[in-house]
Amino acid sequence: MISRVLAADLPKHVGSQVRIAGWVHRRRQLKSIGFVVIRDRSGLAQVVVTGPASGTTTENMSEETVVEVHGLVTANAQAPGGVEITGPTFTPLSDRAEPPPFGLYKPHVTATLPTILDNAGVALRHPRLRAPFEVAAASVAGFRRTLDRLGFTEIHTPKIVGSATESGAGVFGIDYFGQRAYLAQSPQFFKQALVGVFERVYEVGPVFRAEPHDTARHLAQYTSLDAELGFITDYRDVMTVLRETLAGMIATVVERAGDVVDLLELELPEVPAEIPAIDFVEAGELLTRHTEPDPRGEPDLAPAHERWLSAWAARTHGSEFLFVTGYPMAKRPFYTHPDPARPGCSNGFDLLFRGLELVTGGQRLHRYRDYVTALDARGEPLESYQDYLSVFAHGMPPHGGFAIGLERWTARLLGVPNIRQTTLFPRDLHRLNP
Amino acid sequence: MISRVLAADLPKHVGSQVRIAGWVHRRRQLKSIGFVVIRDRSGLAQVVVTGPASGTTTENMSEETVVEVHGLVTANAQAPGGVEITGPTFTPLSDRAEPPPFGLYKPHVTATLPTILDNAGVALRHPRLRAPFEVAAASVAGFRRTLDRLGFTEIHTPKIVGSATESGAGVFGIDYFGQRAYLAQSPQFFKQALVGVFERVYEVGPVFRAEPHDTARHLAQYTSLDAELGFITDYRDVMTVLRETLAGMIATVVERAGDVVDLLELELPEVPAEIPAIDFVEAGELLTRHTEPDPRGEPDLAPAHERWLSAWAARTHGSEFLFVTGYPMAKRPFYTHPDPARPGCSNGFDLLFRGLELVTGGQRLHRYRDYVTALDARGEPLESYQDYLSVFAHGMPPHGGFAIGLERWTARLLGVPNIRQTTLFPRDLHRLNP
Repeated sequence: MISRVLAADLPKHVGSQVRIAGWVHRRRQLKSIGFVVIRDRSGLAQVVVTGPASGTTTENMSEETVVEVHGLVTANAQAPGGVEITGPTFTPLSDRAEPPPFGLYKPHVTATLPTILDNAGVALRHPRLRAPFEVAAASVAGFRRTLDRLGFTEIHTPKIVGSATESGAGVFGIDYFGQRAYLAQSPQFFKQALVGVFERVYEVGPVFRAEPHDTARHLAQYTSLDAELGFITDYRDVMTVLRETLAGMIATVVERAGDVVDLLELELPEVPAEIPAIDFVEAGELLTRHTEPDPRGEPDLAPAHERWLSAWAARTHGSEFLFVTGYPMAKRPFYTHPDPARPGCSNGFDLLFRGLELVTGGQRLHRYRDYVTALDARGEPLESYQDYLSVFAHGMPPHGGFAIGLERWTARLLGVPNIRQTTLFPRDLHRLNP
Repeated sequence: MISRVLAADLPKHVGSQVRIAGWVHRRRQLKSIGFVVIRDRSGLAQVVVTGPASGTTTENMSEETVVEVHGLVTANAQAPGGVEITGPTFTPLSDRAEPPPFGLYKPHVTATLPTILDNAGVALRHPRLRAPFEVAAASVAGFRRTLDRLGFTEIHTPKIVGSATESGAGVFGIDYFGQRAYLAQSPQFFKQALVGVFERVYEVGPVFRAEPHDTARHLAQYTSLDAELGFITDYRDVMTVLRETLAGMIATVVERAGDVVDLLELELPEVPAEIPAIDFVEAGELLTRHTEPDPRGEPDLAPAHERWLSAWAARTHGSEFLFVTGYPMAKRPFYTHPDPARPGCSNGFDLLFRGLELVTGGQRLHRYRDYVTALDARGEPLESYQDYLSVFAHGMPPHGGFAIGLERWTARLLGVPNIRQTTLFPRDLHRLNP
């Protein structure tokens, strides 16, 4: 059997008999000539059916039926890609397909988000709906490639944990052989402990939040790109590594998902050699002068404030990225390292990208007694943190890290408003299927 | 501040003042000279403390305290790596560390497995206990690199699912916003659906099994290296991709974890150009002639049989890998494709490696009506599988795939008997911490 040729490679085979295979993307029957467009993972191929039986041939298939086609690759400047297949023989590889939930062959997506999500397994075949995940895969490859180069070790940590202590967000409970256990909200404690083993670690994996709110940017499960590194001077070393990582992610998207960048006409951001940073207090002063106060009155940035600051960075620094540093300790988790010069302010940062918080990071405490003080101050019992704390009693270097939400990152790159559009099978308050 | 030099790079800096940083691995005090060995992620560095105060200096530190050392790199053929640091100044980066649960500086591990597991965050700092995870990280990098090259797309699928339908193994239940949900036992259904989108997909992620048995090769969570590909002729195409993948994993271990291969004196397997395969029936005949019958009387291979067959393949084919093909349909999940010539036999296979089943794979059903028949025959209600089945009604190519258990793979490469030794923080019937 001759090897299968992908649609995108057909121009290299003009004048040859080939075998292609894929989904019937679209059929068109004119009087005595029919066109069948075949879709495979590389793109589209046009097959021309002529002669009196052409109508019957194209009628016998339906959109999404999987077929194999043998035929001659023929140059035709008018065909997509400049080639088409003539004199074809079709062999079905699946039964005749049922009609998809909406026209997968239409250049733009005509379905609503709920229709897409309810039928994800089929809907994602639309080239524009599949595209975000090619950007996501390239981004993750760039994340790993950059950190591998910087001497990081990849880790895989437990998603089932014994206590629900790490953050304020909601957790999912599990029945674990009759014991109560929880789904991990992040690999935070594990990645810190493993700085003691490997110095520099990263993990790409699912994290779980029992988010009781229906928003466009929260899901019950998302993919967290986590990194943590030891022997830092302070949070600025973490920001430097993060900057390198983002640049590596963008470069890999260009390299591996160029077709998709073209298809979606994406404008990829430039990552400045140094991402501008603004202190939280200074940001607050700007916001007071230029925006409405946060109705919640909280010492944190409201979404509108994030958008304003992001626009400000673009205007004044020509950067789509902005670090906000020195967040109040009160708004950060207990393991956050304070700024030695301003104990109420943290050595933690957020990274805003195109109007939204994309990354949270910072320096962590690394001395056992600092953890004891921090937990005491929050009235938290030390016992719940015993396993976690023990590594600090056994010598830990100054360290810090960050976490990037993959789906958020992809959504920002694509300019789509809802992270459900960049999640293969989203899980939320109302959605547990497909 | 001068940049930090890693221990392994010191020979390049003979004659220079440098800064190193790491953990105090070991102290030795002779009459008027002291030695402090510093451990960092690259290896060990010897620091020489001379003069009357040397005893005080080495006393002030303890093993595992984190320090920074400034000093002169001096050649000394007797020192490890041929260099040592003289005229040092020490700066502590952590408080004085508490004694570790066992001697981390001893060349071999003196602790029992329970002690190691109870103190994993500190115990894994021992170079021999850390080593398996460097082999694991390199293996995963090789898995991805090979499949990237073969046109696969990386995916991230839900770990929370609405029904517990996929396999016979136990599942963990979750309270999902008041609804009953489950932890996914594998990405099987998702990866199959996504063959319809990307043709070739892989996922590296956690899978969950509520294993009620305490064995050396089962855990409640492990890392599954999953791949699935469309447009295959049959299961043999899957075996070919698996063979490529294993060869890529071994090559990447050699390339990225060579130090560890040396430290542990590993004998890495050769992956033959074609891995030998034996049919299940033929294997059964061999076993009947040469071994005791399986006391369970099941149409499956007992662990002793896997060991015997593996030894047989090594003896007769010179291969540490052996495919067993044509497993009885009765022993495979409902989505398994039968052998068209022998409907009671499957197009599924197992791969044995060094006496143990390492990979399960095969061709899957791809026609909707075949799923209906298969589920009917097992008395399973179609409704529970609605979302899964719909993709098959909408046109799916012949496809198949495989799953490699990362921790098992690493354990076999290292020749360690228990997968808890190749899992950072194992989760089992009795262990939910650390």
